[in-house]
Amino acid sequence: MLSRHKLAEGAKKGMLADSALIAHGRGEAFDYLLGEQTIPSAQLATQEASARLNSASHPIISLNGNVVALCGEESLRLASKIGCPVEINIFYRTPERMAALLDYLIEINERLELGVTILGQAPDAMIPGLEGPRAACHSEGIYSSDVILVPLEDGDRCEALVAMGKDVIVIDLNPLSRSAKMASVTIVDELSRVISNLIEMQPNVRKPTDWNNELCLQQAIDFICESLSTGKQSAY
Amino acid sequence: MLSRHKLAEGAKKGMLADSALIAHGRGEAFDYLLGEQTIPSAQLATQEASARLNSASHPIISLNGNVVALCGEESLRLASKIGCPVEINIFYRTPERMAALLDYLIEINERLELGVTILGQAPDAMIPGLEGPRAACHSEGIYSSDVILVPLEDGDRCEALVAMGKDVIVIDLNPLSRSAKMASVTIVDELSRVISNLIEMQPNVRKPTDWNNELCLQQAIDFICESLSTGKQSAY
Repeated sequence: MLSRHKLAEGAKKGMLADSALIAHGRGEAFDYLLGEQTIPSAQLATQEASARLNSASHPIISLNGNVVALCGEESLRLASKIGCPVEINIFYRTPERMAALLDYLIEINERLELGVTILGQAPDAMIPGLEGPRAACHSEGIYSSDVILVPLEDGDRCEALVAMGKDVIVIDLNPLSRSAKMASVTIVDELSRVISNLIEMQPNVRKPTDWNNELCLQQAIDFICESLSTGKQSAY
Repeated sequence: MLSRHKLAEGAKKGMLADSALIAHGRGEAFDYLLGEQTIPSAQLATQEASARLNSASHPIISLNGNVVALCGEESLRLASKIGCPVEINIFYRTPERMAALLDYLIEINERLELGVTILGQAPDAMIPGLEGPRAACHSEGIYSSDVILVPLEDGDRCEALVAMGKDVIVIDLNPLSRSAKMASVTIVDELSRVISNLIEMQPNVRKPTDWNNELCLQQAIDFICESLSTGKQSAY
């Protein structure tokens, strides 16, 4: 599978945490239950996310190791179209991993002349309620953002961002995860499909709506149950 | 988590394929949906498996990299109690991986004086219907077995073993996988819990029953749907 190859490449470059492949496997299982497709409720959530990112004053895309390895270029293309910065924020922060991720993104950004501001190298602010390196962020980046796209985020950090009053858009294949439940808008879909869909939706002039995220999650759960009952999954 | 630590150790020893961690992550997602517990239908399937292994003429336990890394010692203890051999049979066969797996098991077998016959080093037979190194097996081991326990098996191999007329017992957290559907008895449960339960059931004098595996799989699916609907999973 292409995504596995990308993760193997990312691992070679030192971009990934030890838990990256296990986390990816968990996602694969849920994607299998979704039939490896963008289900209708996820399509609606992606449209809502697109509208919110486009009408934000300070939108931003938060990137971690798996996201950069799987969709680094596509994430920069999306940021370029929205006109927003990206910020690397990783759970297991080491100087080596940060350097590997920054180098990889900077090279793409320059080669494709995308002009995206890439943050993460010199955090000067803290997300309240989090401890250690995970709290570190840029004051002109995540800290002051009003709408933030956080693909594959952990529950604690999602909760802390919501507590800051931000509009938090999460991409998570598990509709029952803490991140999925905490987010303002949860897109239950596979990362690369979502980023591709968000790029296609640009430019977006829709207005954000009164989004019912609980209903959206329930629709994903219902889809998975239906899929389990009928046994219509893609083959492993 | 303990199992992640064991996989990391196994990887260091060269016992695992590249896909080992992703496969483990997929299992984690299904175990999460099962509430990380042995559900009633899995308990019944484990009892049936125990009865079949104990009343077999030539029972055997097939081991791959993940199984050895996660439950090498426990698998040998189970084999010792049943009085059957184990055979290493891996999807991505290389001399280095085989040596790492054999060395690891032989050391445990000698240190604990378990007296288990460990096969895999010199296959002299082929499983019909499979191509390449995956087909290789021992004539006095897997080839001539009547009841075979294959934890974490791939669908093709499971199907080929069933086609040989064997009673195939599979451990698989995904009740919809090809292996799960092909097997004579499928235990939808986490590997280390199953091996521990099988050891506890020794000595077993029950007789094998007319097992309805389809019903057993349906009960696992129903359990997962119920779990999804009520949102009662363990936290990631």
